[in-house]
Amino acid sequence: MPYEKRQKAIDLQHHISDFARARAPTPLKGLLKYNKPGTYMLAGGLPSPTYFPFSSIAGEALVPASFPLAVPKSPSSFAWLWNIFHPISYPKEKTSTVTIPKYAAKPSDLSLSTALQYSPAVALPQLQQIMYEFTTKVYQPAYEDFTILVHTGNTDGWHRVVATLCNKGEAIIVSEWTYPSALYTIMPFAISVAPVAMDSQGMRADSLRSLLRDWDENVQGAPSHVIIVEDDPYFFLQEGPYIPKSRRTNSTSTPTDDEASYVSSLEPSYLKFDYQGRVIRLDTFSKTIAPGSRLGWFTCSPLIAEKLERQGESTTQAPCGFGTSLVTQLLTHWKYEGYIRWLRGLGTQYTLRRDYFIDCLDDEFDLQFAFARDGIWEGRDYYLASTKSGAKQMSEKFDRKIMFSFVPPTSGMFVWLKLHFENVPSSAQDESLEVQLWTQLAKAGVLVAPGWFFSTDILSGSHSNNGQGHFRISFSNAELDDMKEAVKIFGKVLREFFGET
Amino acid sequence: MPYEKRQKAIDLQHHISDFARARAPTPLKGLLKYNKPGTYMLAGGLPSPTYFPFSSIAGEALVPASFPLAVPKSPSSFAWLWNIFHPISYPKEKTSTVTIPKYAAKPSDLSLSTALQYSPAVALPQLQQIMYEFTTKVYQPAYEDFTILVHTGNTDGWHRVVATLCNKGEAIIVSEWTYPSALYTIMPFAISVAPVAMDSQGMRADSLRSLLRDWDENVQGAPSHVIIVEDDPYFFLQEGPYIPKSRRTNSTSTPTDDEASYVSSLEPSYLKFDYQGRVIRLDTFSKTIAPGSRLGWFTCSPLIAEKLERQGESTTQAPCGFGTSLVTQLLTHWKYEGYIRWLRGLGTQYTLRRDYFIDCLDDEFDLQFAFARDGIWEGRDYYLASTKSGAKQMSEKFDRKIMFSFVPPTSGMFVWLKLHFENVPSSAQDESLEVQLWTQLAKAGVLVAPGWFFSTDILSGSHSNNGQGHFRISFSNAELDDMKEAVKIFGKVLREFFGET
Repeated sequence: MPYEKRQKAIDLQHHISDFARARAPTPLKGLLKYNKPGTYMLAGGLPSPTYFPFSSIAGEALVPASFPLAVPKSPSSFAWLWNIFHPISYPKEKTSTVTIPKYAAKPSDLSLSTALQYSPAVALPQLQQIMYEFTTKVYQPAYEDFTILVHTGNTDGWHRVVATLCNKGEAIIVSEWTYPSALYTIMPFAISVAPVAMDSQGMRADSLRSLLRDWDENVQGAPSHVIIVEDDPYFFLQEGPYIPKSRRTNSTSTPTDDEASYVSSLEPSYLKFDYQGRVIRLDTFSKTIAPGSRLGWFTCSPLIAEKLERQGESTTQAPCGFGTSLVTQLLTHWKYEGYIRWLRGLGTQYTLRRDYFIDCLDDEFDLQFAFARDGIWEGRDYYLASTKSGAKQMSEKFDRKIMFSFVPPTSGMFVWLKLHFENVPSSAQDESLEVQLWTQLAKAGVLVAPGWFFSTDILSGSHSNNGQGHFRISFSNAELDDMKEAVKIFGKVLREFFGET
Repeated sequence: MPYEKRQKAIDLQHHISDFARARAPTPLKGLLKYNKPGTYMLAGGLPSPTYFPFSSIAGEALVPASFPLAVPKSPSSFAWLWNIFHPISYPKEKTSTVTIPKYAAKPSDLSLSTALQYSPAVALPQLQQIMYEFTTKVYQPAYEDFTILVHTGNTDGWHRVVATLCNKGEAIIVSEWTYPSALYTIMPFAISVAPVAMDSQGMRADSLRSLLRDWDENVQGAPSHVIIVEDDPYFFLQEGPYIPKSRRTNSTSTPTDDEASYVSSLEPSYLKFDYQGRVIRLDTFSKTIAPGSRLGWFTCSPLIAEKLERQGESTTQAPCGFGTSLVTQLLTHWKYEGYIRWLRGLGTQYTLRRDYFIDCLDDEFDLQFAFARDGIWEGRDYYLASTKSGAKQMSEKFDRKIMFSFVPPTSGMFVWLKLHFENVPSSAQDESLEVQLWTQLAKAGVLVAPGWFFSTDILSGSHSNNGQGHFRISFSNAELDDMKEAVKIFGKVLREFFGET
């Protein structure tokens, strides 16, 4: 629908929400104040908090320093990490209790009578303040009046952006390989994608430039200001370069640098360069607290935030009050410094997991180090994997086939493998080799994500692997011994597939 | 977009969601089983539960019998109720602790490691079972394979129904006065409304019949099977008829009838009569646990449920794990019988509140009993309100103007007043009298909901009060003394407005 009509709809929503939530309607702002003596709100259908069946809720919260900052070197040093994955043998977590009573002693404290009540689709004031301080210090937006607006996780956030800003027949610009869930969100809106070629840094500037220059407004909708949506759940999983086991130094001492140095060591958000309010950043607690928090926030211009809030009022409303109050009380208790300490500990855990997984590949395959002088990996270190001498008795190194190659990730939860199907004995089957190998792996009990899922042309149903293949493998969740076992099965299936047995 | 295209989009979403959540994709169902030894899920980006910063959460849960079942008669009998509204003087709530550990002792018990993890957009198995038992026993659906699907409250539920089933240019059938938030949800989808005239029972059958007979498919979209969406958050606030204070009997003894008798005394859901799967019922914990639960469920045919689940995957995902696990543990602890006891206590509370509010009107105004023989209130008892003799020294009863009239509600949280503006001294102001009076009230500190907000023609901007006016006043939330004070202010403003001072 035209923007103007949508605009009218969401402006009307604003009014309705005032009444439904017993807020003073816009024309009466200042005249009426909720909870002010002499003011009686009899408009909204709010139950009395007396009828909320919890007199308090509480959580046993881990301390911010639950995970060390130092990365041990040798595999045996993983022993302490191993313990963490076997909670029964590692019961001595250090915790403290955070509590939210139904009625707080001070009005500024969190209370269930507020957190579990109907409210506008914004954050509790205490959480708003935490998110604001965090965003200011960590992402350092380049303009003053950026706005923080709560959402129920980045999936909701992205959906709301699309529902608010995109009109039928328009296109969004994405890198040619992207997060498939984001594509499926746009599909019912009849929006198309305009893919941009990638290099090892992400979108290629030259490809983006030519896309915008040749923009066809008949096919892709009217050209307009480009809005950048930064959906960045893995921001704090920045792991640094992978160092092979043999060259890894043992850093058992705890880094002594402070929060500010740590924060400035992270790759920046687009917010830091956006002085025009064209960036909508999506943050989530899914990867830093828990996915089930269903809690996150937009950082964007006040103009856009106001519309996203309206969109929230007719969909999710405010996020769950139980979750919001527990997360808010946790962060209030930890304080900014504590949360940063927690995030640093988490980052180290993912670095250890990344290293452990690649070490497993190194144990299972012969990994050959290389440096990419051109192509999509230009400028990056990578590894070529072939059968280990021990696994197949071959005296001549050049006889071994390259089965896959990969760039060790410096952030996130995944290793992406490029499969060298040119080295597979020819097959008459008409399914793509990627699907064939993926199915073999799944039958052997190892589920990985196939590359075709991340292709932008999956939307049009026109995706063809053309003999190429990729797997995305997660090192975020499996217990370490399972990861090792899975890599062994992976090795066995690959050797069979490549005729290396 | 055409249904077929939307269908394709949501089928593809299904696949993506399998991978993202590390489920076995549909073609491999049965081959892979999550957590089965020898199966390794390395597809999804799931954090290890080790990194969830809560080792347990807990709630102090009120006992199911926290509120009495009996309705006391006289105003002084409200004293015990009064205490409840002053929690400081009524601290002795009886509670027991419900706890959810990160790792449960038994696999069938709730654990945070599951509740806070990514999951399909469905309920935890324990909650699924509770909702299924409750729906089966309370609503008694007329066909066997009805499906229960969790959502994040009825606002989300309704939005998902619209986004899944409605196409641009189509119309939804609503009663001529309806819940405005439901209208604003449909507006960005460019869907219109087809209003049906009402009587005291809701939609008029003759009006609905003629609407369907004269359906214009060029304007209102193709005729098709009618889907009935039952958005029914007030189901358990069934309060029975209002009995005037003077005729109320004092029932201090506790009713002894069992859950089954209570359940069968309630007005039925449409589910009870739907043998074709054309009803989508929306249930919510907002009015029975707390609005901040952001938790509810659909009951509908498996065909529709499957599509609503897909819609959930690209918007809210599963509801918040903190809230879900606390509500689930509460209901597991209470059991079905306990929850029914809680709901009966709640119903009694709202009956008391309804009675108290109308008693306040009776104290402030002269209420004249009447019986409607025709018109929209046909067959119902109602009251006509005029200035009390004490408030204005008038000896002749017939001199007093009727200022408003109302049917005492038998359920829900609101009293609807019909304003008799024909008795207002003529005014030259061009704003409608409803808006004028509403503004006077708001300035005096009493906020009520104006009737025009609930008109279906508000969407087209064509609403005109035509000299009529209504207010919706909530008795659900205010403390009793505030309610009394608000009614006094209401009386004062009304008398001024009607020239009765």
